[in-house]
Amino acid sequence: MLIIDCHGHYTTAPAKHQTFRDAQIARIKNPALPEPTRPDISDDEIRETIETNQLKLLRERGADMTIFSPRASTMAHHVGDEAVSRAWTEACNDLIKRVVDLYPENFIGVCQLPQSPGVPIANSVAELERCVTELGFVGCNLNPDPSGGHWTAPPLTDKHWYPFYEKMVELDVPAMIHVSGSCNACFHATGAHYINADTTAFMQFIEGDLFRDFPDLRFIIPHGGGAVPYHWGRYRGLADMLKRPPLPEHVMKNVYFDTCVYHQPGIDLLFKVIDIKNILFGSEMVGAVRGIDPETGNYFDDTKRYLDSLALSDDDRYRVFEGNARRVYPRLDAALRARGNAGRDL
Amino acid sequence: MLIIDCHGHYTTAPAKHQTFRDAQIARIKNPALPEPTRPDISDDEIRETIETNQLKLLRERGADMTIFSPRASTMAHHVGDEAVSRAWTEACNDLIKRVVDLYPENFIGVCQLPQSPGVPIANSVAELERCVTELGFVGCNLNPDPSGGHWTAPPLTDKHWYPFYEKMVELDVPAMIHVSGSCNACFHATGAHYINADTTAFMQFIEGDLFRDFPDLRFIIPHGGGAVPYHWGRYRGLADMLKRPPLPEHVMKNVYFDTCVYHQPGIDLLFKVIDIKNILFGSEMVGAVRGIDPETGNYFDDTKRYLDSLALSDDDRYRVFEGNARRVYPRLDAALRARGNAGRDL
Repeated sequence: MLIIDCHGHYTTAPAKHQTFRDAQIARIKNPALPEPTRPDISDDEIRETIETNQLKLLRERGADMTIFSPRASTMAHHVGDEAVSRAWTEACNDLIKRVVDLYPENFIGVCQLPQSPGVPIANSVAELERCVTELGFVGCNLNPDPSGGHWTAPPLTDKHWYPFYEKMVELDVPAMIHVSGSCNACFHATGAHYINADTTAFMQFIEGDLFRDFPDLRFIIPHGGGAVPYHWGRYRGLADMLKRPPLPEHVMKNVYFDTCVYHQPGIDLLFKVIDIKNILFGSEMVGAVRGIDPETGNYFDDTKRYLDSLALSDDDRYRVFEGNARRVYPRLDAALRARGNAGRDL
Repeated sequence: MLIIDCHGHYTTAPAKHQTFRDAQIARIKNPALPEPTRPDISDDEIRETIETNQLKLLRERGADMTIFSPRASTMAHHVGDEAVSRAWTEACNDLIKRVVDLYPENFIGVCQLPQSPGVPIANSVAELERCVTELGFVGCNLNPDPSGGHWTAPPLTDKHWYPFYEKMVELDVPAMIHVSGSCNACFHATGAHYINADTTAFMQFIEGDLFRDFPDLRFIIPHGGGAVPYHWGRYRGLADMLKRPPLPEHVMKNVYFDTCVYHQPGIDLLFKVIDIKNILFGSEMVGAVRGIDPETGNYFDDTKRYLDSLALSDDDRYRVFEGNARRVYPRLDAALRARGNAGRDL
């Protein structure tokens, strides 16, 4: 069995990558500055940042592979215009590709999108296609709020998003619904904006009929589904009040939660109320919460430990650590099969 | 022991009350219309709406008393200007006072505030004072987002809010942090906006130092604390990353959660991770989720049942059903003492 972490970001990219971004931002304020060129980053520089961080932790924690995407908090689709977002996005995605090429056994790519507030999502289709068909990526991170905390885009069930969903279905790739940093002082990025976005997206799916139009569309809602599992009774009750079908058929054929919940009681709840077919192992490592829990002596985000404490059957362990990820990301499954790993048929 | 529900709204007010509101809203669109006058609502009309709803359910479920406030979703501070908000707020609060006068054993009042986007919170001080000193109310509902889903007000830790906090401390009343309806299509009111606001407020308290400035300020975060207990490890970890003191001293001397979590596993989690001193029985009844859970045959919002299923000691039962409410709402305690009920000293 492989241990596949469905949620990892390149939060430790070489400093030069951020310097490029800083130059981009400086040029927004002062257009007289030259357009920055992408830095020369050597393979060794990438190795250094990966081997001392994500790969080290992957090994220490006994996991095999991370579905890897650019740092979420710095996607910052609200910074600058669409051209800025596009240049930054391409640089971020190309850097992920280099990590994957250096460690193909351990990382597989998921892309950032060149979203920008007020810009049609159709404009993100080409970058998705490039990343999937040319770079071998297996999914994308879709930001439901490119405004960074002002929520000016329509709900995810709105036809605004349909051109992108059509391409996702055509390419057979899922999206993780993931906001970026917040430029609204009310919302701390990882403490409020992320969790709120997860909760918001789920409720949008209850209200809408998106999966009637796209029965094959698949979303991962990260951070354990935001507030949803804790309030599972509320969501079941709201679906009932709104005359929607029960959640298992209305939403949960298409929506998956990761396990980025940083304490045992939260993980226990997640596995108690959500069908194991809808749960994918994830840690968001190295990410939002980097410290060690004084109550356990272990890293808060070492979520594999919490899962190992559950009394899961071998089949269920396979589902949450490998099988569900292969099902939700068919291109990951295909890549593993191409290496001779057919997985199990459950 | 009394069973005190800390979270009930007058969601069933007589239709005339809404007609008044509708006339207010019509006049926003057409200022040539006359200013509406408050309807004549008889005691019998109020009795009818209470005895067939809140009081009936209170009795059926074996509770004694509700800390009662105007309907939250229709506070709608974003509708019209400050004068509209003030007239509506006063009408709502006066109606609560009439319910309390008719059923003083079963209801005690908490007020809505005449908040309005962009208006100083100091303008809400007089209505708080009127409700507490003249109407005998014991607390208020403070809306952290009077814009109704656009989050244009500063965080609750900002000095913007301090004039109101000073009056809360002077009057020794707590506030439930409660948003109203959402005019942002992204946020379903009870399914996203409410829960997001709870989560957002808690994270603001972690980031800030509000309770250093106001050690006696008390807030109830409703709906079981939003996403917070489920992500308790994340919040402990973020406090650590942000170099804040541990949550028990930094936030939890001043913040309380209610039990509006509509399934047993959620309640189990709440009581597992949150100190019982910080939990107040609440049901939000008659409110957000009105149906019967097909999995249990009981009302989703009959939260007393979930609590009764917990293995609580007698002392802890007293705390969550009565003692904590008396401590957080000292004016409720005083009202009960004036009736000869001194409670227990724990």
